[in-house]
Amino acid sequence: MGIIGFGAFGQLTARYLLPYFRVLATDPSPNGDTVGGVIMTDPAKVCRCDVVVIAVPLSALADVCRAIAPLLRPGTLVLDVCSTKMRPAEILLAELPPHVDLAATHPMFGPQSIRAGTRGLKMVICPLRGRSPRRIAAFLRKRFGLAIVMVSPEEHDREAAFTQGLTHLIARILLRMEHLPDRITTRSFDLIRQAVEMVRHDAPGVSQAIESNPYAEQARGLFFAEMDAVRREFRP
Amino acid sequence: MGIIGFGAFGQLTARYLLPYFRVLATDPSPNGDTVGGVIMTDPAKVCRCDVVVIAVPLSALADVCRAIAPLLRPGTLVLDVCSTKMRPAEILLAELPPHVDLAATHPMFGPQSIRAGTRGLKMVICPLRGRSPRRIAAFLRKRFGLAIVMVSPEEHDREAAFTQGLTHLIARILLRMEHLPDRITTRSFDLIRQAVEMVRHDAPGVSQAIESNPYAEQARGLFFAEMDAVRREFRP
Repeated sequence: MGIIGFGAFGQLTARYLLPYFRVLATDPSPNGDTVGGVIMTDPAKVCRCDVVVIAVPLSALADVCRAIAPLLRPGTLVLDVCSTKMRPAEILLAELPPHVDLAATHPMFGPQSIRAGTRGLKMVICPLRGRSPRRIAAFLRKRFGLAIVMVSPEEHDREAAFTQGLTHLIARILLRMEHLPDRITTRSFDLIRQAVEMVRHDAPGVSQAIESNPYAEQARGLFFAEMDAVRREFRP
Repeated sequence: MGIIGFGAFGQLTARYLLPYFRVLATDPSPNGDTVGGVIMTDPAKVCRCDVVVIAVPLSALADVCRAIAPLLRPGTLVLDVCSTKMRPAEILLAELPPHVDLAATHPMFGPQSIRAGTRGLKMVICPLRGRSPRRIAAFLRKRFGLAIVMVSPEEHDREAAFTQGLTHLIARILLRMEHLPDRITTRSFDLIRQAVEMVRHDAPGVSQAIESNPYAEQARGLFFAEMDAVRREFRP
């Protein structure tokens, strides 16, 4: 199994899949990070794997696809792991050869949320081409107890715009409020604080990806509108 | 131990203290709710207990205090459980006789959050008069593993305005957004959703009490200001 882009999520993937696969990885700008047992090599070798996970930011996805397209063998399954799915699905379908299977995926977790274990963590899989996406889904369910949600890229983006978008919006607001109290807190405030901490530690690319969700503006607009309605309720 | 006001929190208190005390309770408007083992009786008998917990909304606290003042014996410990502490502390000190010990308290939990057990739940105790407030604090630590926070009513209200106030503000906004998705969710969104559900099930009096916090307006103002700053960042 091959990983293209060995950043935070690429390394996380490698760590969990090493017990089940021989893992090859490549990174356009290697920063010295490695994971014991992972073979760091060039894109050509990585692309000869049966499954190739592209773990790069959305902004780099098209270039990476164009670069690896000639290197991929027939029957290979190629996945992306971006936080939105409509645009990445377009890119995979447009840039990669018809002889590879394709799935746009969104693991709804990261280094923070996986600490409590993988069981029950959600992963969205949008099968785009071929049968292997369903096989990988079955494997992830069986081995890691992931809750696999199979939807279209459009269904994903419409829902994620609210769930991820609003979480990031609330986190951005609270992170601007310096030193919130942590002594006299309710359980519900502690939960919100926990959510904010998860967002605070997201990889840099994540928030841009979330804001590039085609439905993000609509979700923000509705949140701000309800916000203004609540604010008016407080006006004397 | 006596409970005046046998609503949601009065009943919760009774349920947990029955193993350790003989519990008497009274309610100005009895709604038939009882807890097995609790002796429902009149205010006079309840006020002869060693510890009297006033579990009524802030709006009723002054009247209740005036009504029970003549019924309390020297050395009795009287507690309130309102969600703010400055105003209740004023009322207890003004309306109750000097021969009773006083503590303004705020259990930072309710029927929702206590389901996972009492250990680690926070309870604010503001000792107002006498030594017994510290004895009750030691008992609650030892028997229920509560995290007791001993502060002044003013310290409580300043911090709670942010922790409780912002949680309620965010919950009010999200509760106005009908049917948020629950299928494609991140762990952080699930945490915020959990917090909102806790607030949704708060007793009716709670949100009024929280909004009566003298610092509530300041906390809201800061939140709305950061909100507007974030909103401006999104404007083209």
